[in-house]
Amino acid sequence: MYLENINSPADLKGLSLPQLKGLCAEAREALVARLSARGGHCGPNFGMVEATVALHYVFNSPADRIVFDVSHQSYVHKMLTGRRHAFTEPAAFDAVSGYSEPAESEHDNFVIGHTSTVVSLACGLAKGRDLLGGSENVIAVLGDGSLSGGEAFEGLNNAAELGTNFIVLFNDNQMSIAENYGGMYAGLAELRRTGGQSPCNLFRALGLDYRYVADGNDLGALISALTEVRGIDHPVVVHINTVKGKGFAPAEADKETYHYCAPFDPVTLRPLAADDAPDYADLTADYLLARMKDDPSLVAITSGTPTVFGFTADRRAQAGPQFVDVGIAEEHAVALASGIATRGGHPVWGVYSTFVQRTYDQLSQDLCINDSPATILVFWASALTMNDVTHLCLFDIPLLSNIPNLVYLAPTCLDEYMAMLQWSIGYTGHPVAIRVPVGVPEHTGRTYVPCFDALDTFETVRRGSRAAIVAVGSMMPAAMRAAELLADYGIDATVINPRFVSGVDAQTLDALRADHTVVMTLEDGVLDGGFGEKIARFYAETDMRVVLRGHRKEFVDRYDRRSLMQANRLTPELIAADVARALAAR
Amino acid sequence: MYLENINSPADLKGLSLPQLKGLCAEAREALVARLSARGGHCGPNFGMVEATVALHYVFNSPADRIVFDVSHQSYVHKMLTGRRHAFTEPAAFDAVSGYSEPAESEHDNFVIGHTSTVVSLACGLAKGRDLLGGSENVIAVLGDGSLSGGEAFEGLNNAAELGTNFIVLFNDNQMSIAENYGGMYAGLAELRRTGGQSPCNLFRALGLDYRYVADGNDLGALISALTEVRGIDHPVVVHINTVKGKGFAPAEADKETYHYCAPFDPVTLRPLAADDAPDYADLTADYLLARMKDDPSLVAITSGTPTVFGFTADRRAQAGPQFVDVGIAEEHAVALASGIATRGGHPVWGVYSTFVQRTYDQLSQDLCINDSPATILVFWASALTMNDVTHLCLFDIPLLSNIPNLVYLAPTCLDEYMAMLQWSIGYTGHPVAIRVPVGVPEHTGRTYVPCFDALDTFETVRRGSRAAIVAVGSMMPAAMRAAELLADYGIDATVINPRFVSGVDAQTLDALRADHTVVMTLEDGVLDGGFGEKIARFYAETDMRVVLRGHRKEFVDRYDRRSLMQANRLTPELIAADVARALAAR
Repeated sequence: MYLENINSPADLKGLSLPQLKGLCAEAREALVARLSARGGHCGPNFGMVEATVALHYVFNSPADRIVFDVSHQSYVHKMLTGRRHAFTEPAAFDAVSGYSEPAESEHDNFVIGHTSTVVSLACGLAKGRDLLGGSENVIAVLGDGSLSGGEAFEGLNNAAELGTNFIVLFNDNQMSIAENYGGMYAGLAELRRTGGQSPCNLFRALGLDYRYVADGNDLGALISALTEVRGIDHPVVVHINTVKGKGFAPAEADKETYHYCAPFDPVTLRPLAADDAPDYADLTADYLLARMKDDPSLVAITSGTPTVFGFTADRRAQAGPQFVDVGIAEEHAVALASGIATRGGHPVWGVYSTFVQRTYDQLSQDLCINDSPATILVFWASALTMNDVTHLCLFDIPLLSNIPNLVYLAPTCLDEYMAMLQWSIGYTGHPVAIRVPVGVPEHTGRTYVPCFDALDTFETVRRGSRAAIVAVGSMMPAAMRAAELLADYGIDATVINPRFVSGVDAQTLDALRADHTVVMTLEDGVLDGGFGEKIARFYAETDMRVVLRGHRKEFVDRYDRRSLMQANRLTPELIAADVARALAAR
Repeated sequence: MYLENINSPADLKGLSLPQLKGLCAEAREALVARLSARGGHCGPNFGMVEATVALHYVFNSPADRIVFDVSHQSYVHKMLTGRRHAFTEPAAFDAVSGYSEPAESEHDNFVIGHTSTVVSLACGLAKGRDLLGGSENVIAVLGDGSLSGGEAFEGLNNAAELGTNFIVLFNDNQMSIAENYGGMYAGLAELRRTGGQSPCNLFRALGLDYRYVADGNDLGALISALTEVRGIDHPVVVHINTVKGKGFAPAEADKETYHYCAPFDPVTLRPLAADDAPDYADLTADYLLARMKDDPSLVAITSGTPTVFGFTADRRAQAGPQFVDVGIAEEHAVALASGIATRGGHPVWGVYSTFVQRTYDQLSQDLCINDSPATILVFWASALTMNDVTHLCLFDIPLLSNIPNLVYLAPTCLDEYMAMLQWSIGYTGHPVAIRVPVGVPEHTGRTYVPCFDALDTFETVRRGSRAAIVAVGSMMPAAMRAAELLADYGIDATVINPRFVSGVDAQTLDALRADHTVVMTLEDGVLDGGFGEKIARFYAETDMRVVLRGHRKEFVDRYDRRSLMQANRLTPELIAADVARALAAR
């Protein structure tokens, strides 16, 4: 009855405090409606309902700039800025993304999906304002989990230098995705305990003014605090103490599970697509836990996403000191791994493809120049996983495979993956990254010897003639199916599993020249800077025709996964057709 | 008379305090001897003489692990760990690198050359020790400038979690390369003013124990403080207040100039190779300063290295608020630039090729997904600049050119560079990076129209037939010279300036197929993931032979620049020979 009348933040301004509280209740109902149907970031949004209403009540977006870190707490902001239908009307649920998106609304300043960037981005808005003579407020909304990322510190340290209006709304819900890790969290707890009075104050130590709101879900208190800092002439942090999942009982009770949720039944709370079968993450954690019992030097590391490789709370407890969560600090994770390996330990860092991007320099400098034998497990590297533009998992091959010393392996199935994982932990020659397959783990029945010491050696899976398909990792099933289809046309294709994407097997590739005229490469990643280009380069001075198949260099958003594979001609039928056409052209 | 007897840290242990002070004086003489002859990091080492002697007096390296951030203050450590000849014997000056190097000595734990990594690396040593049941001390030596990098914060935040022996020696010389920037420096000043008693303590706020040494050049005080924390059972920061350049008058007087010095006359202090001719950095700063006068929205940004694009102290003063130094915080710099551009400003970030590596994710997420029109000037991108393994400037093309939306330009000469710079500041289509040429800026006499709106269009500089050379940026003079040499053989080569390294010009490349059979690509960068591979991919399904020339994917260290160019066949003579050979093979 309130929300239905909110078409822009202006519609909030006339409401009384009780009416605004009614709006908060309705916003929570809308959150349940959309989250149960579509899934999404759950706990962070419930905790930020009052603060978001207060922000839009006190400030005048879009003139005033409000920027939400990582966008995990921006759903209510979307509801209040002309996009309420996407939360109340099932037919419109897909009309907005789960992240800030300027294309949707002038109230969104940036596309944001990776953590810890908001203070820096907002500093830019403030600096631009100051150069151009503007007078608007700039507000950066930062979570306590995000504070563990180094860029957030860089931002806060620099914000203090602005000397002009800049407001950091620090949403302290005492949780990252899982628990928070790091020494600063004791200091934040002390600030909460003392009502913001503790003299040992991280924000003040960074040169910032500071206010504290003890109940960050008390709308009246929030409005007072924000009104007080509106138009302030210097940088200030407003620290609000909120309850993650506030007002949605299951999310309050189990904060880690409900940080992000898959679609669920709003009554029974059961996930709509229950799937208890172990996936690659579970199998990885179980394998590592078993190994840890015999090897005290084996240690699993996460940068704030423990379940990426199956380390749920119970498995973390089993691993004890052999599991380390460094917070959302990928750079630290890589350097830590290098140090552990240098001291004789066996570190294994599990990370999503989209987040491995956050640490190129540490991979190059701390890990690879030092040639420290650590294992990096890159998960979800495929167009078939996350399809938000900020979470694309398509750039890991260009990023990792062109760093000297790093061995990047791409297993084609569960058995080969487990063999590579086993090998990598004992291997001391170089750092090893593994592109973990995606989808349902399947045993192929083949036995893989866990020895990959012979670097950059490809495996010929099927020996034919005329055309060869070199299929990286999880493209192998499509390649094998394409070979079957080609057989129907009378073409007996060779299929090669390169295993290594960080180098080429000159012997195998040279040998193909005897009786092949076409080589097709397949990779579920961007072509530019990727594996196929290495093959094209290898054959560049020969007669071999190389047909490269992978993804175009582009930022795609919320794409249909099958359509993208089709558009980039990565289905068995199109692969077969393209091989046949290339052969016909010879 | 002391130094000559120090062959390992054990030889320090028997010396008295006055004798150790004598050793410090001799170490300073040795620093002057080598620095005047070879150049290197000057100020940081003079300030750390006493602390380094104290470290090796109190701790037992290599059993105890001492790790120096960025290695800028590790020279005295090298002198005391069996490498004194490299500082006292001119014939041995080249025997050690300017950075930590395990290949030189068991007392060096890592190869380190990029800033802010030491706490994380040392955390790894400590974690490995704890897993394996060791008992040694782990000491991370961190400078105040390095503290502005986010990874240092990530490390400190996580160090607190170790709960075991871990010592951060925080060397506060009140300077970065230039001045320090950031809100935390006021807090550090307050700690110095209060003798470490200020309750607002950044380190304590991060959960770390803390000690303060008021005179960090007082050997006795340092020995006492370090002895007190030796064997400590939890993480502690020992904050020492030192004088950058201590004991070397010119370095004390001009801390920025003497952070790093080129070889100089030890008596007159004049640089041995005086060069007052304006270089690309000077010309860039002068151009930007001139533009700033008419455009208040134009702002130059540096991440701690202002002179990379000519912003010396006097030019910084001229720019006023239109120049921003964010400290050694590349990630913040990129996000800041994106924010400024979003608010309508024109940001220009100048950065060394080796350091642009530190911000891949921010380039992708904060800048390119948002398609914010900022300019990035990438300096020294060539094998002909820095040749230390930690400072290679060869990886920027793979890193930048494969990010969607980013336009990466490679000008071939001064005039083209200035045209591209001018265009980029007004261009609002995409973010633009420019690979600034290296070497002496030369006018070619050609006029370049400052319009590059037609993206990915190559320019044919010389139209011949049969063979074409596509030369990226500063490889153009070698390509033109090779074309002259080929003319002597009766080969009339085409020479193409691609201008854009982030895309290919299908029309120009297709047209070559009419009367060319060989295309050679030249890039002064690693081949893997680079420009040549894009050309190889373009022609992969055609008859065209593509010969790729660039650098091998490898970590080379202190290489001879000419030899490397020769080894990778990037000289005019070898280019001409290889083109002729490829033509002959057709």
